[in-house]
Amino acid sequence: MAIAGAVVSTEVDNLSCAWGIRMSISEITLEELNAEEFIEKQVAALSSTVGDEIAINALSGGVDSSVVTLLGHRAFGDRLKTYFIENGLMREGEPQQIVKWFADLGVKVEIVDARDKFFAGLKGITDPEEKREKGITQVFYKDVFADLVRQSGAKVLLQGTNYTDVEETAAGVKRQHNVFEQIGIDPEEAFGYRVIEPILQLRKPAVRVVARALGLPAEISERPPFPGPALAARVVGEATPERIETVRKATRIVEDELAGSGAFQYMAILHEDMVTGIREGRRDFGQQIEVRCWESTDAVTATPTELPFATLRRIADRIVDEVPGVVSVTYNVTAKPPSCIEAV
Amino acid sequence: MAIAGAVVSTEVDNLSCAWGIRMSISEITLEELNAEEFIEKQVAALSSTVGDEIAINALSGGVDSSVVTLLGHRAFGDRLKTYFIENGLMREGEPQQIVKWFADLGVKVEIVDARDKFFAGLKGITDPEEKREKGITQVFYKDVFADLVRQSGAKVLLQGTNYTDVEETAAGVKRQHNVFEQIGIDPEEAFGYRVIEPILQLRKPAVRVVARALGLPAEISERPPFPGPALAARVVGEATPERIETVRKATRIVEDELAGSGAFQYMAILHEDMVTGIREGRRDFGQQIEVRCWESTDAVTATPTELPFATLRRIADRIVDEVPGVVSVTYNVTAKPPSCIEAV
Repeated sequence: MAIAGAVVSTEVDNLSCAWGIRMSISEITLEELNAEEFIEKQVAALSSTVGDEIAINALSGGVDSSVVTLLGHRAFGDRLKTYFIENGLMREGEPQQIVKWFADLGVKVEIVDARDKFFAGLKGITDPEEKREKGITQVFYKDVFADLVRQSGAKVLLQGTNYTDVEETAAGVKRQHNVFEQIGIDPEEAFGYRVIEPILQLRKPAVRVVARALGLPAEISERPPFPGPALAARVVGEATPERIETVRKATRIVEDELAGSGAFQYMAILHEDMVTGIREGRRDFGQQIEVRCWESTDAVTATPTELPFATLRRIADRIVDEVPGVVSVTYNVTAKPPSCIEAV
Repeated sequence: MAIAGAVVSTEVDNLSCAWGIRMSISEITLEELNAEEFIEKQVAALSSTVGDEIAINALSGGVDSSVVTLLGHRAFGDRLKTYFIENGLMREGEPQQIVKWFADLGVKVEIVDARDKFFAGLKGITDPEEKREKGITQVFYKDVFADLVRQSGAKVLLQGTNYTDVEETAAGVKRQHNVFEQIGIDPEEAFGYRVIEPILQLRKPAVRVVARALGLPAEISERPPFPGPALAARVVGEATPERIETVRKATRIVEDELAGSGAFQYMAILHEDMVTGIREGRRDFGQQIEVRCWESTDAVTATPTELPFATLRRIADRIVDEVPGVVSVTYNVTAKPPSCIEAV
């Protein structure tokens, strides 16, 4: 089939071309996608490209990296080592939950505790781009992943970069943590390994179709997107362990309350600005949490979800009651554009 | 009548007691208030207390200072000099509009241009309490008003402090710009004049009843509260002329859209935190405006108004379209407590 063929050929081009040259990537739309064929072709392409080498990948538990993990395990079996990097920036109970889901699918995932390395890398950084680049990307690839590659002997890294990531990075909107080639960085030269990105031509809804076809549970295939820098992207200003813990508590409440909303994505953002509050009749200068909940199909454009006002009020009451230091909660009412889905 | 008598006697106590001693003030509730008697007693008390001296007052155009202006003019006629201090922090067209309303009532109001003094006082200040105290109160009383008093020969300043102002300051929630005695400051010693506060026993709804009884137009008697530090209280972080202009534009949109909402108070707040936005396909790191709209009777407790979602979306669209530099708009969904009505 021409379209699925195009996938493989683009992927092969992708691997065989000189690093550092920006290439054109053609999208496979939701309408064009035949999930079974896509899986078959990608598994075949991976097998033929990687040969007998050992491959490695990092699983975040999002739908993108989960699909890549299963495609990789179909292609390589035990020659693919899958790691969950505990960066200290994940949501409550997330590492354990994800390891369990994959154990149920017969895939072994190893948790790597890299919390100290990430918080050291994030220390003192307040600029969002610097946070992503220096605090997350550099630590992830150079400090954490390079070690794992050396230990495992892997020469290839599988990665879940999707079409929207490339598009937004190329457009200069936001540097995604997982886009190299398109911005002129050669990972083999910079970090010592090759990167293969099997879902580069798919946007999120198409990735979900592939996830279902691969037999991933609904908790993963329908999982709302979560940013690569994890909760560090949910903190305006410095991502200290204390501030991450604050936004983690608020995130649990928002996800708990909005799990049944059917929305594309929802989140809590801890702001740096302090606002005046009052508790037990006395001034309490405290923190503010912004809640965002989005309607979108592809993350390129999005509108805020019209949540029931009682839901918003309940979320606010729970956050100011249950999250120490927070006195104020707001709800985003701006569309993308000119807002972005994430604040950081 | 016992209650109205209590007003006068408290006021007399208030004036005759030693400055710096905190006294107990009893509220006149909405149910207890007889507006005509209140006006008559206050005018009589003012006349007998001030005698033949010249009095002075600052009119902001809010219901509190408007009521005090009319009470004062009934008591003193031309011996009360009423000034509108143009501090550079007022809303669009506000000085001219207020002067016109009072001209229609036969009261002459003089505009004093003190913009440079206020912006000099606010320079570099980011802490909310310091902004109110050093940037507004000190400049207002020491730099601006003291000059006017000297020029006018006034020995008495009339001021619109109300019961909630005193209560909140005494409780340590927030230092109101107009509360001295209750926090142990003697204005005669500190600034060179005496302060009389005719509506000290009334909360806002009672003040509105008196305003109507005084014949003030509905634009004033029903006017939503506006803070003493004006738009400086609507800016998180430094109140520069540029940032005040940004929040002034957003304020005009919010007031325009919510004028018919029947809400107690509504406002736009410019935050200091920058958030990621996107315009014309490119990253736009921009500012955020928080909209608040409150249901309340007395400002002591308040809940966010359940505005139609379409109204919130329209306000957001207008702000990001019409206010340069703003890419994100949120709506407050937290009650007071633990929020406060104002963020600063």
